Amino acid sequence: MKKDLLGLQQMTAPEIARILDTAVPMKEITGRQIKKVPTLRGRTVVNVFYEPSTRTRTSFELAAKYLSADTVSISASASSVVKGESLKDTARTICAMGADVVVLRHPMAGAAEMLARTVPAAVINAGDGAHEHPSQALLDLFTVREKTGRLDGLTVAVIGDILHSRVARSDIWGFTTMGATVRLCGPATMIPPGIEATGAAVCRNMEQALDGADVVIMLRIQLERQQQGLFPGVREYARLFGLDEKRLALARPGALVMHPGPVNRGVEISPAVADGVQSMINEQVTNGVAVRMAILYLLSGGGKNE
Amino acid sequence: MKKDLLGLQQMTAPEIARILDTAVPMKEITGRQIKKVPTLRGRTVVNVFYEPSTRTRTSFELAAKYLSADTVSISASASSVVKGESLKDTARTICAMGADVVVLRHPMAGAAEMLARTVPAAVINAGDGAHEHPSQALLDLFTVREKTGRLDGLTVAVIGDILHSRVARSDIWGFTTMGATVRLCGPATMIPPGIEATGAAVCRNMEQALDGADVVIMLRIQLERQQQGLFPGVREYARLFGLDEKRLALARPGALVMHPGPVNRGVEISPAVADGVQSMINEQVTNGVAVRMAILYLLSGGGKNE
Amino acid sequence: MKKDLLGLQQMTAPEIARILDTAVPMKEITGRQIKKVPTLRGRTVVNVFYEPSTRTRTSFELAAKYLSADTVSISASASSVVKGESLKDTARTICAMGADVVVLRHPMAGAAEMLARTVPAAVINAGDGAHEHPSQALLDLFTVREKTGRLDGLTVAVIGDILHSRVARSDIWGFTTMGATVRLCGPATMIPPGIEATGAAVCRNMEQALDGADVVIMLRIQLERQQQGLFPGVREYARLFGLDEKRLALARPGALVMHPGPVNRGVEISPAVADGVQSMINEQVTNGVAVRMAILYLLSGGGKNE
Repeated sequence: MKKDLLGLQQMTAPEIARILDTAVPMKEITGRQIKKVPTLRGRTVVNVFYEPSTRTRTSFELAAKYLSADTVSISASASSVVKGESLKDTARTICAMGADVVVLRHPMAGAAEMLARTVPAAVINAGDGAHEHPSQALLDLFTVREKTGRLDGLTVAVIGDILHSRVARSDIWGFTTMGATVRLCGPATMIPPGIEATGAAVCRNMEQALDGADVVIMLRIQLERQQQGLFPGVREYARLFGLDEKRLALARPGALVMHPGPVNRGVEISPAVADGVQSMINEQVTNGVAVRMAILYLLSGGGKNE
Repeated sequence: MKKDLLGLQQMTAPEIARILDTAVPMKEITGRQIKKVPTLRGRTVVNVFYEPSTRTRTSFELAAKYLSADTVSISASASSVVKGESLKDTARTICAMGADVVVLRHPMAGAAEMLARTVPAAVINAGDGAHEHPSQALLDLFTVREKTGRLDGLTVAVIGDILHSRVARSDIWGFTTMGATVRLCGPATMIPPGIEATGAAVCRNMEQALDGADVVIMLRIQLERQQQGLFPGVREYARLFGLDEKRLALARPGALVMHPGPVNRGVEISPAVADGVQSMINEQVTNGVAVRMAILYLLSGGGKNE
Repeated sequence: MKKDLLGLQQMTAPEIARILDTAVPMKEITGRQIKKVPTLRGRTVVNVFYEPSTRTRTSFELAAKYLSADTVSISASASSVVKGESLKDTARTICAMGADVVVLRHPMAGAAEMLARTVPAAVINAGDGAHEHPSQALLDLFTVREKTGRLDGLTVAVIGDILHSRVARSDIWGFTTMGATVRLCGPATMIPPGIEATGAAVCRNMEQALDGADVVIMLRIQLERQQQGLFPGVREYARLFGLDEKRLALARPGALVMHPGPVNRGVEISPAVADGVQSMINEQVTNGVAVRMAILYLLSGGGKNE
């Protein structure tokens, strides 16, 4: 295991598999009534969030607590960024206070990598701009592997605003590295030029993207981007790129439906599909805690002798 | 014990007594130098507050910590409500992460009940609009029972803005169920029409409400409502409905004075009364932690074999 | 040990030395992989911050966690100050909930002292207006003593906005009490009239202040004060009162450079000096946790029999 978890682009299949394997016993812990194990007792995990994110922050915080680590959360608005302190100084300060792991959410692509070079603590990228969100992709991989038994040879459709989605980017690297085929689909303005270089295929429309797919990952529509003239409008978007039961029937029978949440019901996904038997949305959240426990464990030096 | 604590309206006297009885040993814990017991070790309590409330949130947080539960707090402004996530989705997400108990403060009456039907976790209503605030009423009941040795047959005066007070509503149900007589008094515009159906009596003025009362519960004046033209003005309000030593003398000698806090000194209650020997205000806060420990314990399956 | 830590002005040399001595073994704990000791298990530390401060709050929070105390943090914006609750009422409430130690940051000089008279809990002043910030000065003293082996007989230069700096005030009292000589230097408008009464000497310029000094403490420039017409401008300030390598050469060879952080690089201190071998800035942060552990330990009754 490297010092940090910055993105899936630079990770190998065995490195990814190691995290997924470690998350299996972690998930057993989260399902128990007594969820606490003493594994990371006396270790310190600091969440530094320069963008609000209840889901990801809470998931990391609970993952740390279930492993008995101490946690402190720092949010941008409450932090000394108010006083103009730079990200580097903040991180150095946190590490000088004894942080073993820093979990960073930041609006700037590359922020976590810059930090990882600056501080001795393990750095986990919890989302850096539109670049990567590796723990989200790892929980997607874990969910698919758990449900289907494999990743190699699967066909995964990723639908929506690919351009602005760090989840899409991490999913593309992760699924491709693990031997799956990735198809992309979304409004033409939201497909990054040259994205085919990643190995993913760009589809003309939903029908083509969904045809026989094993997994359908619907991205969240950032409604706040509507004002920026990038969107065809919510209703038109739903008509062209929304997932309803009729469209889902184009995929392989029993195909998994995934979404990083929170869901805009009736926009990118219909309520019937979001709450249907093929929906993995709640399962993804549960798996997210287990995967983050595995990441915290491995980055804290766990499993060194294995 | 039911799965949730939503309000006192639907609770029976034995159910209420069970919580009060359980809070007795809990109070002994809070008075110790080492306040921690391992009772809820490995259980997870998540506070979800859509309205700011330091008192109630801190009280629940400390109650959980004294029982060794893990706690996470989510406040509306920092949460993904910013991203438009619905209350239901937020709750489902929290539960998928392993929450055993969700403590909810929400501006909408009925929010906790809706949530309780949605998620498997125990839901505690920490205030839903102007509807109920059951843990506050339970600590009021506990305080009176501890000091006077009983609830049955007592006369309790509740003074102030009954219309907008969830505390008043929960107190009415709680004291009435436990056999006390409840009298209400406040500006005519702040007495809900038909409130007599609860069994409480509406009094014409403070003198009538206080006459021989065993307990006087002063409600907090929401000064922010003044702008809405509902108030006669602070000075006039204090003259008509404020509790000073002269008025308190109308109640039974040694009558208990209570207030949910924070107090507007000199408005609904004079400083001399707020800090006087009959004031239970600080004791209520102490009892609040014990009562919330009892609630958390019972809702987590504690005392099942008793 | 007294009940509270309010400021260094009223402390004796043995009292200060006791805290510094206690911080020595505490620092060993913070350097370990397993940083947790059970010393304050079951004790409750409540941080009440009426001004934002990630550094100081996080430092106290981690200090408490490393000693296994329970912590709750209350920030002004999220707190019931919104509802107009007074500082006294908030503190009484927190203590009624079982707080053993209250850490207070408040914009008003004297706030911590007022609180200490009001509540039974130990009160730690974490900064009260421009008055005192004793834990910061104690970590400065600890750092100097650790590096040089003594405090008595040293010459300490404190440079910058003395008038508005609680750090400067606490440092003056602390270093003077421990037998060091303190020199002050800054813009004429930022030297408080009559400050010589503290025993500190006011210098005409940087050259005079730095000449042969053992320790140079650079204060943070509050850039937000620039608008108030108190500043000569950032560039002019850096020219007159900034610390660069050339100026640092005037001090004793190997003199320690300190700064409470966060640093405005290129304003009060040049990047080369801030990151140079004489800079104690990160070491100060590490020592801050150890010193705060010592304070929490001693105020919680630790070491009574020694």
